[in-house]
Amino acid sequence: MRFAKGHGTENDFVILPDPDGLLDLSPGLVARLCDRRTGLGADGVLRVVRAAAGADLAPATRAASDAAVAAADPGWFMDYRNADGSLAEMCGNGIRVFGRYLVDKGLVCAGEFTVGTRDGLRLVRVQPGRNITAEMGPVHILGPSRVGIGNRELDGLRVSVGNPHLACLVGGSLDDFDLSVPPRLDPCLFPAGGNVELVRVTGRAAVQLRVCERGSGETRSCGTGAVAAAMAAARAVDNGEENGAGVWRVRVPGGELVVTLGDRNSWLTGPAVIVAEGELCDAWLSAPEFAG
Amino acid sequence: MRFAKGHGTENDFVILPDPDGLLDLSPGLVARLCDRRTGLGADGVLRVVRAAAGADLAPATRAASDAAVAAADPGWFMDYRNADGSLAEMCGNGIRVFGRYLVDKGLVCAGEFTVGTRDGLRLVRVQPGRNITAEMGPVHILGPSRVGIGNRELDGLRVSVGNPHLACLVGGSLDDFDLSVPPRLDPCLFPAGGNVELVRVTGRAAVQLRVCERGSGETRSCGTGAVAAAMAAARAVDNGEENGAGVWRVRVPGGELVVTLGDRNSWLTGPAVIVAEGELCDAWLSAPEFAG
Repeated sequence: MRFAKGHGTENDFVILPDPDGLLDLSPGLVARLCDRRTGLGADGVLRVVRAAAGADLAPATRAASDAAVAAADPGWFMDYRNADGSLAEMCGNGIRVFGRYLVDKGLVCAGEFTVGTRDGLRLVRVQPGRNITAEMGPVHILGPSRVGIGNRELDGLRVSVGNPHLACLVGGSLDDFDLSVPPRLDPCLFPAGGNVELVRVTGRAAVQLRVCERGSGETRSCGTGAVAAAMAAARAVDNGEENGAGVWRVRVPGGELVVTLGDRNSWLTGPAVIVAEGELCDAWLSAPEFAG
Repeated sequence: MRFAKGHGTENDFVILPDPDGLLDLSPGLVARLCDRRTGLGADGVLRVVRAAAGADLAPATRAASDAAVAAADPGWFMDYRNADGSLAEMCGNGIRVFGRYLVDKGLVCAGEFTVGTRDGLRLVRVQPGRNITAEMGPVHILGPSRVGIGNRELDGLRVSVGNPHLACLVGGSLDDFDLSVPPRLDPCLFPAGGNVELVRVTGRAAVQLRVCERGSGETRSCGTGAVAAAMAAARAVDNGEENGAGVWRVRVPGGELVVTLGDRNSWLTGPAVIVAEGELCDAWLSAPEFAG
């Protein structure tokens, strides 16, 4: 079984090329692959399937934008799995790493192309250099809420970027918060939990971000979290543009992202690199007892 | 640059085949390789060098045992580096993974062979099945000491297995100790720090172990720590044998090891597996800025 490993702003992924969708990718195997001691180690798995072969997994009938619909049929489908083996719709850093892999392997030409995801078609743009841009879809403002972090209570803005966020603007240093314990969200407004962003405005159209992802705790980077943070900052800061539209620099612990907020769409830009490629050993694949 | 990744009881290593010793393995590259987000991720690096090519790195003039001297010249030298890029003499789980790699790749025949390390020659025995045994050398009892862990004080036995240990027998559950903060050792007796083992005797010649390694914090497994723990338990329990000699089962968080204590030597037995093999990508190798 071939694999690659890559990361975008320290969000890291095991990539499994499986053009014809033949791989029996059980939740157990995903969890073993993502184990940072006994496997390859990653935040998630990106299975690379030809769109035709992946179509039965999730018919890519929705598209985030007219542009995605207007583009040619997607050649490739991103079958994204969380580190625990569960399915997920989309991952903003993952699809950028996915795009890098497609271009590096010559599976698509650099420039603009469409990728199928469980959340619909997404445009990916591979510029010369290190950056890759992914279409993140519409951002919905849902209203205010509060969150408890340690013995503090913070006001925030509920934002949906496909998944639920509470983005909280913070006046002082972001280092003063203990995110080792899950923040306490309002269970009525977040019945399935949510991601919490601590956002500090650091300049004109620039923010710094710490993010706590539901189920994962604090992470080095979160693509949808960066979009939610930019939107919350844009709404709070009068930057002379409507609907929060504009280009925001977002500093995350794992690097720097750029979020572009449009009228009915959003974009995430940042570095993505493939670290290594190789083959899993039969002795490991056939011996689950080696996983701890 | 080719690599493999393997682990023994969840102590994991990046393996770099470099038969002719040509690789410029800087501390910075080792640290990048071991980074669990932006690199391959590991507790350390094992460079696989022909003994002749590695001789200038550390003349393997010492041998742990007459058996090692009597064996043919070592074919291979284990150039072990810690995750931070610093040099280290020996690693009990590392040399077992190193042995597995040599056999898997056909670089030595299974059975018994000698490996050069910075701590001298060591015998390695590859049995059929999953287990590999490594010679750990003599164990020296240095006397009693105490350690502070949280608000508790524990008595322990100072043991040298090449590196310094304080092995503490504990009556109750090992889960009651907080090892997230470094234990406080006597700086006069441990001027360069030391590893601390919490040891619970669970049966006849059987112990359970938690270990806190200097510089690394709590780990899933520690080969020298397993030997020190077995020796401390052997000295405390009258098992009818002299000098603590005997065979001990040692349960670590990452699996199970067997320690054999002899008169002037010790042995560590346990599973070791190669997870994957591959090649590092040029884009990553040439772009240190991708490391966070």
